[in-house]
Amino acid sequence: MYRTHTCGELNKNNLSQTVTLAGWVFRIRHLSKKTFVDLRDRYGVTQLLFSEETNLELYNKIKDLGREFVIQVTGKVIERSSKNPEIPTGEIEIEASEFNILNKAIVPPFILEDETDGGEDLRMKYRYLDIRRNAVKKNLLLRHQMAKETRKYLDAQNFVEVETPVLIKSTPEGARDFVVPSRMNPGQFYALPQSPQTFKQLLMVAGLDKYYQIVKCFRDEDLRADRQPEFTQIDCEMSFVEQEDILNMFEGLTRHLFKTVKGVDLAEFPRMTYAEAMKYYGCDKPDTRFEMKFVEITDIAKGKNFPVFDSSELIVGICAKGCSEYSRKQLDALVDFVKRPQVGAKGLVYVKYGTDGVLKSSVDKFYAQEDLKKWADAMGAQQGDLLLVLSGEADKTRKQLSELRLEMGTQLGLRDPNVFKTLWVLDFPLLEWNEETNRFFAMHHPFTSPKLEDVSLLDTDPGRVRANAYDLVINGVEIGGGSIRIHDRKLQKRMFECLGFTDEEAQHQFGFLMNAFEFGAPPHGGLALGFDRLCSMFGGSSSIKDYIAFPKNNAGRDMMIDTPSSISDAQLKELNIHLSPALSEGEGVKF
Amino acid sequence: MYRTHTCGELNKNNLSQTVTLAGWVFRIRHLSKKTFVDLRDRYGVTQLLFSEETNLELYNKIKDLGREFVIQVTGKVIERSSKNPEIPTGEIEIEASEFNILNKAIVPPFILEDETDGGEDLRMKYRYLDIRRNAVKKNLLLRHQMAKETRKYLDAQNFVEVETPVLIKSTPEGARDFVVPSRMNPGQFYALPQSPQTFKQLLMVAGLDKYYQIVKCFRDEDLRADRQPEFTQIDCEMSFVEQEDILNMFEGLTRHLFKTVKGVDLAEFPRMTYAEAMKYYGCDKPDTRFEMKFVEITDIAKGKNFPVFDSSELIVGICAKGCSEYSRKQLDALVDFVKRPQVGAKGLVYVKYGTDGVLKSSVDKFYAQEDLKKWADAMGAQQGDLLLVLSGEADKTRKQLSELRLEMGTQLGLRDPNVFKTLWVLDFPLLEWNEETNRFFAMHHPFTSPKLEDVSLLDTDPGRVRANAYDLVINGVEIGGGSIRIHDRKLQKRMFECLGFTDEEAQHQFGFLMNAFEFGAPPHGGLALGFDRLCSMFGGSSSIKDYIAFPKNNAGRDMMIDTPSSISDAQLKELNIHLSPALSEGEGVKF
Repeated sequence: MYRTHTCGELNKNNLSQTVTLAGWVFRIRHLSKKTFVDLRDRYGVTQLLFSEETNLELYNKIKDLGREFVIQVTGKVIERSSKNPEIPTGEIEIEASEFNILNKAIVPPFILEDETDGGEDLRMKYRYLDIRRNAVKKNLLLRHQMAKETRKYLDAQNFVEVETPVLIKSTPEGARDFVVPSRMNPGQFYALPQSPQTFKQLLMVAGLDKYYQIVKCFRDEDLRADRQPEFTQIDCEMSFVEQEDILNMFEGLTRHLFKTVKGVDLAEFPRMTYAEAMKYYGCDKPDTRFEMKFVEITDIAKGKNFPVFDSSELIVGICAKGCSEYSRKQLDALVDFVKRPQVGAKGLVYVKYGTDGVLKSSVDKFYAQEDLKKWADAMGAQQGDLLLVLSGEADKTRKQLSELRLEMGTQLGLRDPNVFKTLWVLDFPLLEWNEETNRFFAMHHPFTSPKLEDVSLLDTDPGRVRANAYDLVINGVEIGGGSIRIHDRKLQKRMFECLGFTDEEAQHQFGFLMNAFEFGAPPHGGLALGFDRLCSMFGGSSSIKDYIAFPKNNAGRDMMIDTPSSISDAQLKELNIHLSPALSEGEGVKF
Repeated sequence: MYRTHTCGELNKNNLSQTVTLAGWVFRIRHLSKKTFVDLRDRYGVTQLLFSEETNLELYNKIKDLGREFVIQVTGKVIERSSKNPEIPTGEIEIEASEFNILNKAIVPPFILEDETDGGEDLRMKYRYLDIRRNAVKKNLLLRHQMAKETRKYLDAQNFVEVETPVLIKSTPEGARDFVVPSRMNPGQFYALPQSPQTFKQLLMVAGLDKYYQIVKCFRDEDLRADRQPEFTQIDCEMSFVEQEDILNMFEGLTRHLFKTVKGVDLAEFPRMTYAEAMKYYGCDKPDTRFEMKFVEITDIAKGKNFPVFDSSELIVGICAKGCSEYSRKQLDALVDFVKRPQVGAKGLVYVKYGTDGVLKSSVDKFYAQEDLKKWADAMGAQQGDLLLVLSGEADKTRKQLSELRLEMGTQLGLRDPNVFKTLWVLDFPLLEWNEETNRFFAMHHPFTSPKLEDVSLLDTDPGRVRANAYDLVINGVEIGGGSIRIHDRKLQKRMFECLGFTDEEAQHQFGFLMNAFEFGAPPHGGLALGFDRLCSMFGGSSSIKDYIAFPKNNAGRDMMIDTPSSISDAQLKELNIHLSPALSEGEGVKF
């Protein structure tokens, strides 16, 4: 061992001990006749003292030291004259008597402090340096703690951790699969799992009763800021349970994590149906840290010769408390906000309910005071409030107002990252119509069960069938979701029919699961939580990259190891594949 | 919840309680006016009583029940008349008052008992039924417990669990990579990790100090019985450590696992150099549950006009205690054993040291009593023992004798699966010459450091350089291995030169690691344990498949989900790859 202690543990109790530390040179300060070196390791920082008076030879030797050199130092623990109460080792320093350079370091390409001058690309290329920064390191330590506490809770609840395979079968229902050519089975491919869904269901058929796994999953999607081609989920499944049991179990897990990791006692987990969420918040993952619910005023606002409203399917607004004094500039900014292509509204109607009781709106031409008063009453507005109203096709308008609501919440400081509001969203639709492909897709996945009372609608109005599906939402972020599954072969077959599968296709892709249902499948259901996102929420960041040791960029590249990359012709040949001719000149010639 | 209790927990303390259970119909016994059903779930078996006298309606209803039906039963806990002391619920039964069939079951394709009539192929195809068997289920539960205790130990030792990426870079040094075509980067590929080796080293450069992960790894090799294309390892790395620190740490882990999982207190972990292991056991993973060390008798056995010996580089034998009375048939069987192509010896010389003191051998023509007595003395043989001697080219002969030694150990009952003998094998060679490719390969991997005192041999006699590499062997099985790594750019570069890399190749494949070494890399080292193999050793089986929930067969196929399988032309097109013409008629026509 190169050290007797770490750089995070020495304090006044160790005074006059001789210790050996090893770590990185963090900061160097030369004073007259004294040089102080802050030595850093994973556990903390300890100050080293090299003094010209007590050890000239050593004092001269350290002149070559640079930032991030790896050194080993032996010395005596002494009391510091100027103490640093910010750090646990702040009362002592090490009077160095010996020291070795274990490895030199060239100058890092960016500053390795909490505040760095490195842009994301640079930090990702040198991720091993980025992780030295406390700001990143603590995220990885948090992630470990989260995994540990998750396992602790689920182990105590008798869940069995089972590793499901990574080399599985391509079943292109849902997102795109990553595939792996099989050398031993020429022309055939494995796929990487988008989730262990069918395997965990088979584990229920196998009788394992309560399963979990913290598991890597893979989706070959075009990436957005909060998506990664490989991501991690806390994946769970239980047998002989109803929806209520699952909600309680994972409410318990969430509570445990917040309590043990953040010291936060969560309140009751409210519940809301999907229909309510869409009606009152315009989205299925409402941020419930603040109210500002939608109020529909279609009936009272129509018929006053305002063509925009008169031609609208829906007129709906929110009431921004205390915003009646918004300036022209502020209001224009809101109009610009809703007109952004990402939001897509054509315009915004506002009504200022002045503290003097006078209502002023952007549609005064069409609406008298008493008309606007009706809106204000419907929306529970009081003097001093601002009404913001959008109109148009119902679904689109709700979506737009949802964005505006979040923007107002942010502007009004109602989205405190240190406040945590949980919500179960229930009763999702089973199916979702896709205009492009002219067919239904499963909103959750094809294994989700319909509500018993809605099953007959599968024949008459599939779009109205509700599912036994639920999402866990925290602060407007979908943290996880799940469902009670189908465990009956006939119903599963019916479901595949609704999704436009022929019998052959269903049997070819999912025959193993439907067959399994014939051998005594128990009622079962489960849930998966997005682990990367959960970690980032606990850490107070919106970017999951900050909580992944070696993330990929938005083009799916690992900038550090520089991959994906080309492979050799020999490898391609062994795998019985060719690149498309345009990509491979050599190959193009052969044909 | 479909149940109030599990099938494993009710006993006399629950008498007269009304309970609801859910599970699988395990066994049905019809007696006159009574039917007993054994209900099974993950936790155990509970006997249900359906009585014609007390509940005729129910009694008639259960006539349709078949094995493996999933049912829910409510009833009263009563004392059993004929108790079963073998199971925790053996004192009670449930007098059923209500019951529901939750799902029917067709007849399973093999018997779901500890002893089954299902062959491996059938059991793998219906793995979800196989896992219902206690014999398989307990293996998966053991695996969970092993993972849990591993984490417990390493967490307590301040290791951080970090997830390393699965989509990495192909670096075809060592085994073959599985690769994943990148859609977003046409013509480029990810590779699946054979181990997180370079990433864990980068985590050390990043300052994380102690890393672990229980992680899936992938190797596209032709499979043998104990190999799987995807396998799991306990992967660890530490900074500022010497070999001794790592040996102690993982001796501690092994001890902890044996103690907590098996209740076994392991003795000291002996150590042996690679050279000693090869000399005395003919292999680098000797089974040390028994001695039977090799004794070289080249000098005393040569020169007696026995041409086979006289032309041999090495003459070496073992002494099988108490086997002098082996019959002709037994001896012939041993000769056949060593002549099997898997062993490859040309013949076997034996000497029986009779209880009467007379030495009889298969080479009496060439050797007098006093010659044979010298052999016996050299080999520490006593009256009643049997000497078995092989000869030929040194390395090959040792390998053959190693096989024979294990066979004799088995025959003599010296390999008790309930006895556990650990061993550290140290000082492996750094490099291994490959005749086929006419170059050196790294025996462990290219990141393993040479012993300081041997570094100069890199220039003069690379084959003789010893590495700071170690293997953990238990009962003749290599459970894991590791090394102190190179942490210096120059030495790493020199190592790649020894392996025949050009500077460009080394920089292209491993530039990220060599660059990282310039920014202050600490001395570090680590170890990886084969988790599947460790589990199978703890479970008392030699097949790792028994400890993997969904293993693949020796052709790399998952028989249950039937994969690898073909993917669609659309998928191939998106990935910019073609199958080789011979595999794809459609494509073949195009060119």
